[in-house]
Amino acid sequence: MQRMQSQSPAGEQTPPSVAAQVRHDGRRPDELRAITIEPEFMRTATGSALIGAGTTKVICTASAQDGVPGWMVGRGRGWVTAEYGMLPASTGQRKQRDVTRGRPDGRTVEIQRLIGRSLRAVVDFQALGEHTIYLDCDVLQADGGTRCASITGAFVALARACARLQEEGRLGRSPLTGSVAAVSCGIVGGVALLDLDYSEDSSAEVDANVVMTGDGGLVEVQATAERTPLSRAHLDELLLLASGGIERLLELQQAAIAAQ
Amino acid sequence: MQRMQSQSPAGEQTPPSVAAQVRHDGRRPDELRAITIEPEFMRTATGSALIGAGTTKVICTASAQDGVPGWMVGRGRGWVTAEYGMLPASTGQRKQRDVTRGRPDGRTVEIQRLIGRSLRAVVDFQALGEHTIYLDCDVLQADGGTRCASITGAFVALARACARLQEEGRLGRSPLTGSVAAVSCGIVGGVALLDLDYSEDSSAEVDANVVMTGDGGLVEVQATAERTPLSRAHLDELLLLASGGIERLLELQQAAIAAQ
Amino acid sequence: MQRMQSQSPAGEQTPPSVAAQVRHDGRRPDELRAITIEPEFMRTATGSALIGAGTTKVICTASAQDGVPGWMVGRGRGWVTAEYGMLPASTGQRKQRDVTRGRPDGRTVEIQRLIGRSLRAVVDFQALGEHTIYLDCDVLQADGGTRCASITGAFVALARACARLQEEGRLGRSPLTGSVAAVSCGIVGGVALLDLDYSEDSSAEVDANVVMTGDGGLVEVQATAERTPLSRAHLDELLLLASGGIERLLELQQAAIAAQ
Amino acid sequence: MQRMQSQSPAGEQTPPSVAAQVRHDGRRPDELRAITIEPEFMRTATGSALIGAGTTKVICTASAQDGVPGWMVGRGRGWVTAEYGMLPASTGQRKQRDVTRGRPDGRTVEIQRLIGRSLRAVVDFQALGEHTIYLDCDVLQADGGTRCASITGAFVALARACARLQEEGRLGRSPLTGSVAAVSCGIVGGVALLDLDYSEDSSAEVDANVVMTGDGGLVEVQATAERTPLSRAHLDELLLLASGGIERLLELQQAAIAAQ
Amino acid sequence: MQRMQSQSPAGEQTPPSVAAQVRHDGRRPDELRAITIEPEFMRTATGSALIGAGTTKVICTASAQDGVPGWMVGRGRGWVTAEYGMLPASTGQRKQRDVTRGRPDGRTVEIQRLIGRSLRAVVDFQALGEHTIYLDCDVLQADGGTRCASITGAFVALARACARLQEEGRLGRSPLTGSVAAVSCGIVGGVALLDLDYSEDSSAEVDANVVMTGDGGLVEVQATAERTPLSRAHLDELLLLASGGIERLLELQQAAIAAQ
Amino acid sequence: MQRMQSQSPAGEQTPPSVAAQVRHDGRRPDELRAITIEPEFMRTATGSALIGAGTTKVICTASAQDGVPGWMVGRGRGWVTAEYGMLPASTGQRKQRDVTRGRPDGRTVEIQRLIGRSLRAVVDFQALGEHTIYLDCDVLQADGGTRCASITGAFVALARACARLQEEGRLGRSPLTGSVAAVSCGIVGGVALLDLDYSEDSSAEVDANVVMTGDGGLVEVQATAERTPLSRAHLDELLLLASGGIERLLELQQAAIAAQ
Repeated sequence: MQRMQSQSPAGEQTPPSVAAQVRHDGRRPDELRAITIEPEFMRTATGSALIGAGTTKVICTASAQDGVPGWMVGRGRGWVTAEYGMLPASTGQRKQRDVTRGRPDGRTVEIQRLIGRSLRAVVDFQALGEHTIYLDCDVLQADGGTRCASITGAFVALARACARLQEEGRLGRSPLTGSVAAVSCGIVGGVALLDLDYSEDSSAEVDANVVMTGDGGLVEVQATAERTPLSRAHLDELLLLASGGIERLLELQQAAIAAQ
Repeated sequence: MQRMQSQSPAGEQTPPSVAAQVRHDGRRPDELRAITIEPEFMRTATGSALIGAGTTKVICTASAQDGVPGWMVGRGRGWVTAEYGMLPASTGQRKQRDVTRGRPDGRTVEIQRLIGRSLRAVVDFQALGEHTIYLDCDVLQADGGTRCASITGAFVALARACARLQEEGRLGRSPLTGSVAAVSCGIVGGVALLDLDYSEDSSAEVDANVVMTGDGGLVEVQATAERTPLSRAHLDELLLLASGGIERLLELQQAAIAAQ
Repeated sequence: MQRMQSQSPAGEQTPPSVAAQVRHDGRRPDELRAITIEPEFMRTATGSALIGAGTTKVICTASAQDGVPGWMVGRGRGWVTAEYGMLPASTGQRKQRDVTRGRPDGRTVEIQRLIGRSLRAVVDFQALGEHTIYLDCDVLQADGGTRCASITGAFVALARACARLQEEGRLGRSPLTGSVAAVSCGIVGGVALLDLDYSEDSSAEVDANVVMTGDGGLVEVQATAERTPLSRAHLDELLLLASGGIERLLELQQAAIAAQ
Repeated sequence: MQRMQSQSPAGEQTPPSVAAQVRHDGRRPDELRAITIEPEFMRTATGSALIGAGTTKVICTASAQDGVPGWMVGRGRGWVTAEYGMLPASTGQRKQRDVTRGRPDGRTVEIQRLIGRSLRAVVDFQALGEHTIYLDCDVLQADGGTRCASITGAFVALARACARLQEEGRLGRSPLTGSVAAVSCGIVGGVALLDLDYSEDSSAEVDANVVMTGDGGLVEVQATAERTPLSRAHLDELLLLASGGIERLLELQQAAIAAQ
Repeated sequence: MQRMQSQSPAGEQTPPSVAAQVRHDGRRPDELRAITIEPEFMRTATGSALIGAGTTKVICTASAQDGVPGWMVGRGRGWVTAEYGMLPASTGQRKQRDVTRGRPDGRTVEIQRLIGRSLRAVVDFQALGEHTIYLDCDVLQADGGTRCASITGAFVALARACARLQEEGRLGRSPLTGSVAAVSCGIVGGVALLDLDYSEDSSAEVDANVVMTGDGGLVEVQATAERTPLSRAHLDELLLLASGGIERLLELQQAAIAAQ
Repeated sequence: MQRMQSQSPAGEQTPPSVAAQVRHDGRRPDELRAITIEPEFMRTATGSALIGAGTTKVICTASAQDGVPGWMVGRGRGWVTAEYGMLPASTGQRKQRDVTRGRPDGRTVEIQRLIGRSLRAVVDFQALGEHTIYLDCDVLQADGGTRCASITGAFVALARACARLQEEGRLGRSPLTGSVAAVSCGIVGGVALLDLDYSEDSSAEVDANVVMTGDGGLVEVQATAERTPLSRAHLDELLLLASGGIERLLELQQAAIAAQ
C-alpha cells in the first residue's frame, strides 16, 4: 500500500517576510509538517486510514451499521457520528483511560463533537439511507494538531467506506457531497504559523482550528486567545494560512482515497 | 435595585440595505434583543447577576473559595472555572437533569469550557492569589443565545465579586485586566443577523459565537456551518455585526457593575 | 404580576406565654417568616411559582408530558413525580453540583421523595389520564425550610398547570382532590418554634416537617430528635404550631393560584 | 447460642374493642410478630445480630475502624454510620443489585439515613473517640418492617461491639447513652395495627415508623398517608401502639445483648 | 432441616508420605474442611443453600424468572447467570460495598463469570425454555475458598429450584444434565494441599481452582503461580487432590438436594 | 526496524497422527499462525511493540512512572499493572467503547487482571524500586488469541522499557527475573489445536490459555470447557501443544528485544 506524502509548497507561493522566519524544526511559517496517509490500516473496519502529521499519528476508521439512533428512525435518513480517544501512551506522560474515570473528559467531548459536525457537513443523509457511520479517531502519538488530523483522516476513512458500500451494493449512490479537511494554526511570538506542533502550541498566544470543504467553504472556525486577545488583522492572516494548508491536505486525501 | 436596559442603537448607525430587512420579532438584522441585567439577584453568592436577552434568562453567580485545584497549589496563583446548567423546565419540552444520566451531556461540557476560557482571558491570576472563583450559569429560560448570555452575565457577577473581595480586604487589588462579553450571530436565509433567538437559530445556515474584550480584542470566535459552508465575506459580515452588539453589551455591563 | 404576601396572624391567636418570647429575628414562636409566592415565574413551564420564606427562595415548576413510566402504561392513570436541586451558590459555602459526583446525595433523594409523596396525596390519577407531571424544585437561596417551601410552592405550580391543561382542553376535569402545604417547626432551647430559619435549625434539639391538606388531614409527619429525644407533649405542641402555620400558607396559595 | 423469643403481651393490656379484631395471621392489632434475635451471627464482625420478625430477617453487623471521615478529623470524636442492602432473592420477585445500576435506589438511601440517625441518638461521640462504627443491615428475607427490624437489630450489634471494644481495652468507657428500638404501625381498613407485614403494609391507608429510646423518648416519627390523610386522633392511636411494641422489643434486645 | 456434614475420608485412601504432614488446623494435606450444606436457607428464593467450609459461609440462591436477555429472545432457550457479593463485615477488615464505588471490583467480576460458566456446563438450555435463572452467591464469612464454595452451593440451589419448577409444572423435564462442584488447592511450602483456608492461601506459591462434573470431567482449571512458576508434576498432583475433594463434595450435594 | 517473523517448526517435531490433520487455513494442529513483533511501534512510550498473530494485532506499550499506588508507598518496591482495550473497529461488528457504558465489561476486567499477573511473575519489585510500570494492550484487529498476544507482546514492551530505564540510569539493574509468553489452544472437533483463530475458537469444545516462563514453568493455566467437559488426557495434550508454541514465541521475543 502506497503512503501519500506531502511536499513542501513551491517557494514562489511564500511571501518574502514570512520566508525569512525559521521555526524550531526548520519549517517556514506557512509549511505543513510531513503528512502521511495510509489507507486501509485497519482491515476490520469498513474504511480506515492512519494519518501522520510529523510525529502526530491518528488511526481513523469508519464503521457502517444498519439502523439509526432512536430519534431518527423512520425518516429514511442516515447519521454520522464520531468518537475520539487517545491511547494511554500516546502522550509523553501516560494519560489515564477515560473509562477509569467513568466518563470522557471535557476535551474529548469537545473534540468528538467537532469531528462529527465537520464530517456531517459533506454527507447527504438521504443518500445514506437508514445507516449509521461511526467515525473513530484514536490517537497513537500526540504531538499537537490531533483534532485536525482526525478530521482530515476521518474523511479518507469515510470516503473509502462509502466506496466499499457502493461496491457491495449496500448504497445506491455516494452520500458524499464534497470533501473536508482541517488544519490548526496560531500566533506564536507574534508570528502567524501553520500546523503547530506540541511545543509551538504550548507557547501560542492564539490557537485556531479551521475546517474547510474542497470548494473552499468554511465549515468551522474556532479561534481561541490563550494569552492575548486576537486582532482582526491576525485572524485574517490565520485564515489565509489555513486555507493554503487545507488545499494541500485535500490533494493528499484524494491520493489516499484513490490508492489501491 | 435598578435593572439595566438596552436601547436600540441610533438609526444612523444602520446601513440602508440592512435596515430594510425586518425579522419575525420586528428587530433589524443588527439589533440585539431587549437586554436586562439585574445584579445581586442571588444574595448568597459572592457576586451575581440575572441576565435576560429577550425571553432567554440566565442566573450567573461568582463564588469565591480559598485554595486552588491540586495541580496549581503553591504557585501563589488563583483559578477561575465555570459550570453551566439548565433548569429542567427552561426549555419548552422538559429537559432531563444531567445528574439523572450521571454525567453532563456533550453540549454542557462544551459550553462550560467556553465560559471558563472566556472569563479567564481577563483575569490576572497573580493578583487573585490562591483563590478559586466558580462561575455558575444556570438557565432559567432558554430561547437561544444562552452561552453568550452566560458569558456576558458571568462577567458582571465576577466583577461584583471582585469588588466585594477588595472591600472585605480579601484581595489587595482587582484581578480583572479588562472586561469581556459575548454575542451570537448567524446567517439565516442568506442574511447576517445579530443575536439569534431559538426560532432563528433553528433555521440558521451558519451559527457563530463571538467573545470580545472591552478594548475590542477577539477572545474566541466559533463559527459553525450547520447547513451551508460559510464564505469569507459572510464571516467578515458576522464579525462586524458581533462587534457592534458586544459594544452595546459592554455598556450595559458597566452600568450593572456600578449599580448600588 | 401580583406577589402574594403573608401577614402576621392577629395578636389574639397567640397565647400569652408564647407571645412573651422573641426570636433572633423578632418573630414570635408561632410566626411564619415573610412568605411570598410569585406565580408564572418561569414562562417555559406548564405552571410555576417562585416561593420565598424569609431569605429562602425556591423555584417550583410543573411540566406536563404525555405518557407515563413503563410500569404504569395502559392503565389509563397518570403519575406525578418530583425532583429537587440546589443551585451551587444557594448556600453560603458553594455546594458542588450533584452531577459532579455522578449521583444525587442522600439528602436530595430523601427530599425529592417527600415532595413527590406529598403532592400525590391530592391528585386523582384517573382524572389525570396517562400524563406525567414533573415537579421540579430548585433552590435559589437556602436559609432553612427548603423542603417545606418546595412542597408549598409546588402545589401552586401544579394547580396552575392543571388549570392551564383544562383551559387547553388537554384535561377534562381537574385531577386535584384538595390542596397541600408544608411547614417546618422544632424545639430550640426547650421552646417550640414555627418555621425555623437556618440558624435556628442548626441549634434545634428537634426538627419536624409537617405536611397537611386543606381540610386539615396529616399527609406526612417527620419528627427527628437531633440532640434530645422528644416527649409526647412536645410533639403535640409542634403539631399545633404546624397546623396554625399551614392554615396561613393555604390562604396564600389560593391567592397565588387565582392571580392573573 | 440462645435465641431470644418474644412472648405475647398479657391479655389485660389489650383494650376490649381492639381484642375483638383478628388479623389475617391471627394476631391482635397490638401484637408484634414472633421476634427472634440471634447475637454473634457473623463471627467476622466486631458485633452482630440476626433479627427476625415473622418471616422478615435482617443481618445486622457493627464493624469498628480506627479513624473518622475527613471532615471530623482532629476533634477527638467518633462517628456512627449505617448502610442498608437487600439480598437479591430477599423479595419474592428477584431485586436487581444496587451495584448493577451503579447507585443505591432512593428507598435504600432514605432507609440507611434513618438507621444512622436513630443509632447516633444513643451514642456519646466523645466517649467513642476517633473511631468509626459501620452498621450494615442486609435483608435476608423481606416481609415488611425491614427498616425497623434493622434499627432494633443494629442496636444489639452495636452494643455487643462496644462491649467487645471495652473488653479488648480499645474503649475506656461505653459510648452508649441508652438503648433504641423501632417498630412500624399503620391504619388498615380504618383500624390501627402494630408491626405490619408485607400484605398489611400493601393495603395500609397510613404507614408509620416510630423510633424510641429505652426511657421512652421519641427519636424519630415518620407517618405517611398513602391513601387517606391521617387525623390527629389516629396519629395518637398509632403512637400508643408503637410505644407498647417498642417496650417489648427493648426487653428482647437486653436479653440478646446479655446472652453468652 | 438436616444439615449435611462431611466426614473425613477413610485413612486407607491417604498415601503414607502425605499422611505424615499436618496442617496448622490439624488437617491432612488431602483433607477438606468441615463442609455443611443447609438447603432452603432463604425461603424467598426459588431454591437456596447456605454452604459452609470451615468458617467460610456463603448464601447461594437460585431465582427463576420468565424471559431471557434481549439477545436470546425467540430461540426457545433459557439462560443461567451468576452474581457474587460479599457482605461488608464478611472479612476481618470491613470491605466497602461495591455500590459505593459504583461498580463491582475486578475480583468480583472474575468470580461471577467463573460461577456462571461452571453452572451453565450442566444445564440444557432447550429444556429450560425461555426462563432465566439468577444464581446469587453472597459471602457471609470469608476464610478462603469462597468462589469454589459458591459453585458447589449454587449447584444445590439450582437443583432444588429446578425440582420445584418441575413440581409446580413450570418445567416439563429437568434442565440439569449432570452435577458440578469445585474446590481450591495449592502449593504451600512446597507441599500440595487441598481446600486452602485464608492463612494458607496467603502464603501459597501456587493457587488453583478446579471445577468438575459428577462424571469426572474437568469444567474449568485455573492455576495461578503467585510466587514460583508451577511444574507439570505439581500441576498433576493438584489435579489429583482436587479430584478427590470434589468426589466428596458431590456426595454432600446429593444429600442436601434430597433433604426434605 | 526489522520485523521478527515466525517460521514453521521443522517437520520432524510433528507427530505423524497430528501432521495428517489440516486446519481451515492450512495449518497443522501444532502450528502457530504467522507471528510478527515490531518493537518501538509507539515512540511516545517508554517501551512498545506491535504484535501480530495472523490477522490479530495488538499494540503493547510499557509506560514507567515514578511512585507506586498508595497501599505500597514507603516499602521501596515497585509495581506492574496492565490495562486492555479494543479499538471499536477491531472486531467485524463495531464494539462500543467501554467508556460509553461507564465501566469496562467483565471480559476486559478478566483479561487485564490476567495480563498483570502474568507479567508480575517475572519482575523483581525490589530491583524496580518505587516505580510503576503500566502495560497497555490495545487491540487493533481481533481474530482470536488477543489476550495471549497481549501477554507475549507486553513482555517485549516491558523488556525494552527496562533496558531503556537502565540506559538512562533510572534503574541500577534489570528488574526482570526471566521471560514470559502465552498461547491459546483448544479442542475443536475432538482434536487438540494450537493458537486458535476466531473461527476455531467459536466452535471449540474446550478453550485454554497457557502462560509459561522462559525456563518452562507454568505461570497460569486456564482451561474452560465451553461445550464438553475435558478429560485429563486432553488437558495433557493441550499443555504439550502450548509448551511447544510458547518455546517458539520466546525465541521471537528475544529477537525483537535485541532488535535495534
